[in-house]
Amino acid sequence: MRPSPISASVDFSAEGVQHGFLRLPYSRDDSAWGSVMIPITVVKNGDGPTALLTGGNHGDEYEGPIALFDLARTLEPDEVTGRVIIVPAMNYPAFTAGTRTSPIDKGNMNRSFPGRPDGTVTQKIADYFQRELLPLADIVLDFHSGGKTLDFLPFCAAHILPDKEQEATAFELVKAFGAPWAMKMLEIDAVGMYDTAAEEMGKVFITTELGGGGTATARSAGIAKRGVRNVLRAAGILKGAVETSKTEWLDMPDGDCFSFAEDGGLIEPLVDLGDKVRKGDVVARIYPIGRTGAEPVAIKAKMDGLLAARHFPGLVKQGDCVAVVAV
Amino acid sequence: MRPSPISASVDFSAEGVQHGFLRLPYSRDDSAWGSVMIPITVVKNGDGPTALLTGGNHGDEYEGPIALFDLARTLEPDEVTGRVIIVPAMNYPAFTAGTRTSPIDKGNMNRSFPGRPDGTVTQKIADYFQRELLPLADIVLDFHSGGKTLDFLPFCAAHILPDKEQEATAFELVKAFGAPWAMKMLEIDAVGMYDTAAEEMGKVFITTELGGGGTATARSAGIAKRGVRNVLRAAGILKGAVETSKTEWLDMPDGDCFSFAEDGGLIEPLVDLGDKVRKGDVVARIYPIGRTGAEPVAIKAKMDGLLAARHFPGLVKQGDCVAVVAV
Amino acid sequence: MRPSPISASVDFSAEGVQHGFLRLPYSRDDSAWGSVMIPITVVKNGDGPTALLTGGNHGDEYEGPIALFDLARTLEPDEVTGRVIIVPAMNYPAFTAGTRTSPIDKGNMNRSFPGRPDGTVTQKIADYFQRELLPLADIVLDFHSGGKTLDFLPFCAAHILPDKEQEATAFELVKAFGAPWAMKMLEIDAVGMYDTAAEEMGKVFITTELGGGGTATARSAGIAKRGVRNVLRAAGILKGAVETSKTEWLDMPDGDCFSFAEDGGLIEPLVDLGDKVRKGDVVARIYPIGRTGAEPVAIKAKMDGLLAARHFPGLVKQGDCVAVVAV
Amino acid sequence: MRPSPISASVDFSAEGVQHGFLRLPYSRDDSAWGSVMIPITVVKNGDGPTALLTGGNHGDEYEGPIALFDLARTLEPDEVTGRVIIVPAMNYPAFTAGTRTSPIDKGNMNRSFPGRPDGTVTQKIADYFQRELLPLADIVLDFHSGGKTLDFLPFCAAHILPDKEQEATAFELVKAFGAPWAMKMLEIDAVGMYDTAAEEMGKVFITTELGGGGTATARSAGIAKRGVRNVLRAAGILKGAVETSKTEWLDMPDGDCFSFAEDGGLIEPLVDLGDKVRKGDVVARIYPIGRTGAEPVAIKAKMDGLLAARHFPGLVKQGDCVAVVAV
Amino acid sequence: MRPSPISASVDFSAEGVQHGFLRLPYSRDDSAWGSVMIPITVVKNGDGPTALLTGGNHGDEYEGPIALFDLARTLEPDEVTGRVIIVPAMNYPAFTAGTRTSPIDKGNMNRSFPGRPDGTVTQKIADYFQRELLPLADIVLDFHSGGKTLDFLPFCAAHILPDKEQEATAFELVKAFGAPWAMKMLEIDAVGMYDTAAEEMGKVFITTELGGGGTATARSAGIAKRGVRNVLRAAGILKGAVETSKTEWLDMPDGDCFSFAEDGGLIEPLVDLGDKVRKGDVVARIYPIGRTGAEPVAIKAKMDGLLAARHFPGLVKQGDCVAVVAV
Amino acid sequence: MRPSPISASVDFSAEGVQHGFLRLPYSRDDSAWGSVMIPITVVKNGDGPTALLTGGNHGDEYEGPIALFDLARTLEPDEVTGRVIIVPAMNYPAFTAGTRTSPIDKGNMNRSFPGRPDGTVTQKIADYFQRELLPLADIVLDFHSGGKTLDFLPFCAAHILPDKEQEATAFELVKAFGAPWAMKMLEIDAVGMYDTAAEEMGKVFITTELGGGGTATARSAGIAKRGVRNVLRAAGILKGAVETSKTEWLDMPDGDCFSFAEDGGLIEPLVDLGDKVRKGDVVARIYPIGRTGAEPVAIKAKMDGLLAARHFPGLVKQGDCVAVVAV
Repeated sequence: MRPSPISASVDFSAEGVQHGFLRLPYSRDDSAWGSVMIPITVVKNGDGPTALLTGGNHGDEYEGPIALFDLARTLEPDEVTGRVIIVPAMNYPAFTAGTRTSPIDKGNMNRSFPGRPDGTVTQKIADYFQRELLPLADIVLDFHSGGKTLDFLPFCAAHILPDKEQEATAFELVKAFGAPWAMKMLEIDAVGMYDTAAEEMGKVFITTELGGGGTATARSAGIAKRGVRNVLRAAGILKGAVETSKTEWLDMPDGDCFSFAEDGGLIEPLVDLGDKVRKGDVVARIYPIGRTGAEPVAIKAKMDGLLAARHFPGLVKQGDCVAVVAV
Repeated sequence: MRPSPISASVDFSAEGVQHGFLRLPYSRDDSAWGSVMIPITVVKNGDGPTALLTGGNHGDEYEGPIALFDLARTLEPDEVTGRVIIVPAMNYPAFTAGTRTSPIDKGNMNRSFPGRPDGTVTQKIADYFQRELLPLADIVLDFHSGGKTLDFLPFCAAHILPDKEQEATAFELVKAFGAPWAMKMLEIDAVGMYDTAAEEMGKVFITTELGGGGTATARSAGIAKRGVRNVLRAAGILKGAVETSKTEWLDMPDGDCFSFAEDGGLIEPLVDLGDKVRKGDVVARIYPIGRTGAEPVAIKAKMDGLLAARHFPGLVKQGDCVAVVAV
Repeated sequence: MRPSPISASVDFSAEGVQHGFLRLPYSRDDSAWGSVMIPITVVKNGDGPTALLTGGNHGDEYEGPIALFDLARTLEPDEVTGRVIIVPAMNYPAFTAGTRTSPIDKGNMNRSFPGRPDGTVTQKIADYFQRELLPLADIVLDFHSGGKTLDFLPFCAAHILPDKEQEATAFELVKAFGAPWAMKMLEIDAVGMYDTAAEEMGKVFITTELGGGGTATARSAGIAKRGVRNVLRAAGILKGAVETSKTEWLDMPDGDCFSFAEDGGLIEPLVDLGDKVRKGDVVARIYPIGRTGAEPVAIKAKMDGLLAARHFPGLVKQGDCVAVVAV
Repeated sequence: MRPSPISASVDFSAEGVQHGFLRLPYSRDDSAWGSVMIPITVVKNGDGPTALLTGGNHGDEYEGPIALFDLARTLEPDEVTGRVIIVPAMNYPAFTAGTRTSPIDKGNMNRSFPGRPDGTVTQKIADYFQRELLPLADIVLDFHSGGKTLDFLPFCAAHILPDKEQEATAFELVKAFGAPWAMKMLEIDAVGMYDTAAEEMGKVFITTELGGGGTATARSAGIAKRGVRNVLRAAGILKGAVETSKTEWLDMPDGDCFSFAEDGGLIEPLVDLGDKVRKGDVVARIYPIGRTGAEPVAIKAKMDGLLAARHFPGLVKQGDCVAVVAV
Repeated sequence: MRPSPISASVDFSAEGVQHGFLRLPYSRDDSAWGSVMIPITVVKNGDGPTALLTGGNHGDEYEGPIALFDLARTLEPDEVTGRVIIVPAMNYPAFTAGTRTSPIDKGNMNRSFPGRPDGTVTQKIADYFQRELLPLADIVLDFHSGGKTLDFLPFCAAHILPDKEQEATAFELVKAFGAPWAMKMLEIDAVGMYDTAAEEMGKVFITTELGGGGTATARSAGIAKRGVRNVLRAAGILKGAVETSKTEWLDMPDGDCFSFAEDGGLIEPLVDLGDKVRKGDVVARIYPIGRTGAEPVAIKAKMDGLLAARHFPGLVKQGDCVAVVAV
Repeated sequence: MRPSPISASVDFSAEGVQHGFLRLPYSRDDSAWGSVMIPITVVKNGDGPTALLTGGNHGDEYEGPIALFDLARTLEPDEVTGRVIIVPAMNYPAFTAGTRTSPIDKGNMNRSFPGRPDGTVTQKIADYFQRELLPLADIVLDFHSGGKTLDFLPFCAAHILPDKEQEATAFELVKAFGAPWAMKMLEIDAVGMYDTAAEEMGKVFITTELGGGGTATARSAGIAKRGVRNVLRAAGILKGAVETSKTEWLDMPDGDCFSFAEDGGLIEPLVDLGDKVRKGDVVARIYPIGRTGAEPVAIKAKMDGLLAARHFPGLVKQGDCVAVVAV
């Protein structure tokens, strides 16, 4: 297989703090010899485990980039034992555009693994993580939020895995993260995910959903900033004790969690995130917008639980997921 | 002046409920003899005052349309004394596109008054309200929210006016609306606003800001739905008593309320809506996104108060309003 | 008023055939010192009346441009007594784009009169016709068809006018044109039309609708080619006798001619152009396309007559005119 | 191979009428958890053959969707022996956009077979037909028309096949369809076609071209509606006798059928669909539109026959097929 | 007339150096309370004349912005007697987009004067210069180059004016500027120009054309940097003597200077900037690109002189100015 | 492997001059049966070597197309011994759009080899060259220039190859070409290049960089026109002697030749093409454009040499190559 076309301006084996770039040559109409420049920080101090910290896997999710731009700027080598690799915006073209997928190739980073060195820009980035960065890591924290079109209760999560030791270590880090909610996820279709790529290499992988709507609040950004330091502390990379807090555990058992819209229209939410719902409750109404006086369509919960995620924009399109109920 | 090209399929003087359209001929590349069809409902029962209720003045604000599609569908003539005219989406092309301004002509409806019968589509709609609908009304309620790029504490508001009787009547309705917050607004630049058009005709005009981000919640939609019925009750148009609730009054005394970004970047909010701030507090940081390790720019409050509105998207552009402090 | 920025490369007073351009300077991002170049032909031979012949008033209507590119190429000065000015594509930017309106400014040429010398590109062209070309003309023939979104029975038409002598002369030319159908039109809203501009100067003005759908057929192009020569013959400008043919007269008495769609969807036509309809007949059904099994909306004729025009594309949008019945 | 990501909301083995959707998850910038929802109807009654009926393979062809939305709405189980699966718009994203190819990925459905479960949206739909729907079918009828850029004489067609029994059964259904014209097609490049996919599984496959221009007429829609019921009757699935009518057979023997434009411009058709032509006849002229007075290019027939298809839009581009002559 | 909506963050009467912004509120879909922020520098030291220095009148012209960003950064108050107001990019939205006109409203700044406080963004900027900045100035230097679509010999220029004293002062500054070439311009159509606005107020106005193609060279940027300091020195605002250099004077006597393309295609230049030409010389050929073997169109000089400006892009469109000959 | 879908209207074995097309069927929304028509000329006279001459590999590079449209029009068979195949615009869709890559599929032709017969339009063209045209050739000359975003000193070049005889023949042709500069290139990443495809077949391959900026000058076009005839003469295909001229040899030894921008902004060049530079010299400054008064970033040469290429547009983006130093 061809080597990656990406070159790093940082030396992953050097001690101290380095701020640099992953440079990916990208020839295009408006720059024949242009490049995508993905900011990266490496903080290393002696021997110890390596944490790979990423945000901006989807470009419209902000708690991760906030926590990681902050961490990259403030983390001092003498706080660290081992190495911290920080990429605040994996899908950097998507992040600068404020979109879920890359404006260059519409690539969804989290469905692009293991990537290709001769593929699209998104596939080239995935390939670099697959073949260069993930092998360096012991633990991997990948921040997600709901993005511009979904909103989530803030939770940290890991996957149920065949290797129970790997799984247990991950859930210890989830607990350390200290988000208000936590989730055990059984991924049904894990093809192409960064999560799967990391887990299949035996890495300890945790992720989050920390809000959404294409914004962050002081509260949600605070959860992310505290969470990432907690994880580094629990992993023995950052000095100091984990800041404990109360976490509730959630579960999404099957497809009945999800309610989809068969009709587009104006959505009237009747339940907010965290509210309790019972099977059959109307969680939202969808008004046809072409005329007044028409009956709205009722979207009902298919199981008991609480509202864990919801469609964010005021208008909904046919086929959109409207609500997610967790138990 | 030319007559408006808009024709209504409803008869404003007829008794009972009518659901129909304001039809505006709009010839264009994809429809030579096409029209913009703006849904409208009229509910009339005997003699009494006329309320003109509007949402979707900006197309990405949802509490108003939700409350008004709901009201249009459920309001019965025998609950009413007088007349209720409901236009859930004034700038209907913007509403269907989910954008603040019209996708046809980029018209900002609330800067397009008094409009023109031979102008753009947005100006033609404004002209129809100016010359046809506003003259029919006694009280006018125009719903606003923050839209996709701002978020507000939920409040109802009216303007400080030269005619103190007109002003007092408006503030009685603001109080009746029953939002958690209320505001007395002194408009510095009122040119082109629907508010001004209504007030200059002597109409009792109230408005709202009920959230934002291009979404609605069960809570914010509930405020709108209860508020509109409360206003109709206070005006004697709808039977029944106003549902009272606690309202706090806000004031935005001068330009020091507003903090603008001189630099674009990733915004880290440090204060949430409703939080208290003191002059000089850093309310947000803006990270340059081109590289890690760079210092963020601090956005500071210029006065004591509480955070009443904020920039919503996770990225901020040079010149955007970042925060609004009210007292 | 400022002089027109348009300059002609032809001399309107010179004898013989000239092919040239109306050059309109148009500075833009992709050409700082660019121009719109509107092809024009002038054929002059001695004294006699002047005919101004135009197509491409709307850029997606083809019978006129075909007949006029053909005429411009083949008309010999010695066939002519007087002068023929041929502009096959008035709204030349729209014609080259194949769109009803100008891609530059979305200008609908037939709603842009009298134009402005300092306005948009479309307004500048209208102004040039208003102040330079129309004053040269005695008779004016402006070709229209249905364009990409409408389809018409092929007819030639003139307006009912206050000046009955002017009107009578126009209808003589309509008859001479020799289309299968002919129409007497009473324009309700004539503001901004080329027709009105010409008629208000006392010019004899006739127009056509010769098909549509954004195409031409051998038959419809043949009607146009024969019609324009017939008109020139009847006006004494072209040698030879009018080629007679059978014409049926149509009338569109009032707004009940038109049926509009209140809902978008897939249109199933039940009646074709020229078919007889009776009041209440279903002329088309509109299927909602979001799901199978739903009832289509029936579009009914509001009067007896025959189908004179119809919506062309297979999908219809809310507010589109679906069918026109003439008597 | 991965399972298809598409799930059907209908049960293909259930008796009676079901209207539902093929739901294809489609994550994108404007809906992180969105889906494409393809309407489908299944009508089943006891044992018997299965017909798979499709329209909207190309999204701008309307006779098929009209006939199939109508059939889906009106077909009663007790008329049926066996099963009818109706998908009025295979390439549903293209159909809703009114375009030949998908607006999502520019996929031409009829060049996308056998598809891929991890490919583009169009490839995922093709894969679902390939692996899920075609195996259920005995006979397959796929409706086509000319779309926005071509116009055809209305015909039904099948392919000359190596398996002569399969071929004969197909032509019996072509005859039963009862279009005014019928065609025996020898496909030179059949790679990627739905036709080929069906035929290679041994299915009886027939198709149509029923008009074009991106519209339908009462006549062409009527041919489609009657044709589909005739085919079901001939196959023994629908009760009742085939409605017979006169059909003429056409043949397109080789590449001389096609005339291409080497120059773009304004097209003047000299022959209409169904007209007879002789080798060397000028069937159309193409005028350069940059200036008047220039010679048009003549497009000539390369063989004797009749005009079976033609370029539809009034402007033609370099390389477009202008005319097709059949014998 | 309404006051300008633009507010300056600098105090024009304060001593010393200030870097700030002209803030123009601009509400739009992606920022409800957004602004255009135009960078401005004011350097003031005691009493003396005021120079207003501008670049980026057209957004794709770079010598001016380079010289002015450089000057703004390096000019010290104690070098100055009087005041220097520097706006490196007048049409700031166009400058950031790299386009001649504003991406917001397609406004050509140099045809937008005197502007309007309630107009488009470009008109609002023009109005601010008209009513706020120009009145502060004694001398005005506005930098131009050819932009992305033209290339010029580097020259400084002023207009022939009715007020001969004003004209003479301007030409003294042109001479002081010290570009390799200089030009006396008689503007035929001066409507809407910044030049005219300044001159009609009696200001001493000079301008430049310093290259083009949407780039700058070390040489052309050097001419601009030296020129602006020379002008300030000649005006007595900047300490030190004018750096003299050799300048040749050019004249563009009439419309025969300009050669336009009647046909689009690939342009083969036969003469370079500064080369001598004689009337009738072929200065360029235009190849039709649709086929090989076709004859190119010859573009000829209409007078003797030298090539002063030329079309820049390799493809030329119908109506573009191809060449300008000066004497 | 499938045969190419491209068909040529010329006969490569026929004697004399033929002007024709490579026709590539391309079905799309605006032409169901459309084609890409790539102009081609073949000049053949008796036995002798075949030269394959190409321009427009990137669509915004003009010296090659100018020289080849000129050569195709003027080359006479009796001047030739052997065969000359001329394709002035390989990536014809890119050439007509004036863009580096194809507007259809964003394909960069020079990274698309060996292509695919069932791939994108760009891949289909590459495949045709790979499997049909290159096998016909003995020598291959592919013209390049810098395009719209780069500018080069004019040079002709060939690659250092494993086959030293092949290499030596190529450098003889480079010398014969007679550009002012010449270069020996060692391609580090040659995957997908036309160059590599030709060289791996053992063809003698030379290329050029003759300027840039998306334009050509009389001088650079003259170099190309003389160079192509010189190469044909040196190869014994064209009669006559090579026109000799002085050529300087350049070398780009390693990655230190290139300087990239880590920050976007306004670029101030301090060195022009051909100027000498020493390691550490500032070759350009990049001004942040968000505010005046900020320090620009200095771009320094990393080695001694002369400036051989530079970024062309006035604004530079993060990651763009700013300068190339050669020795």
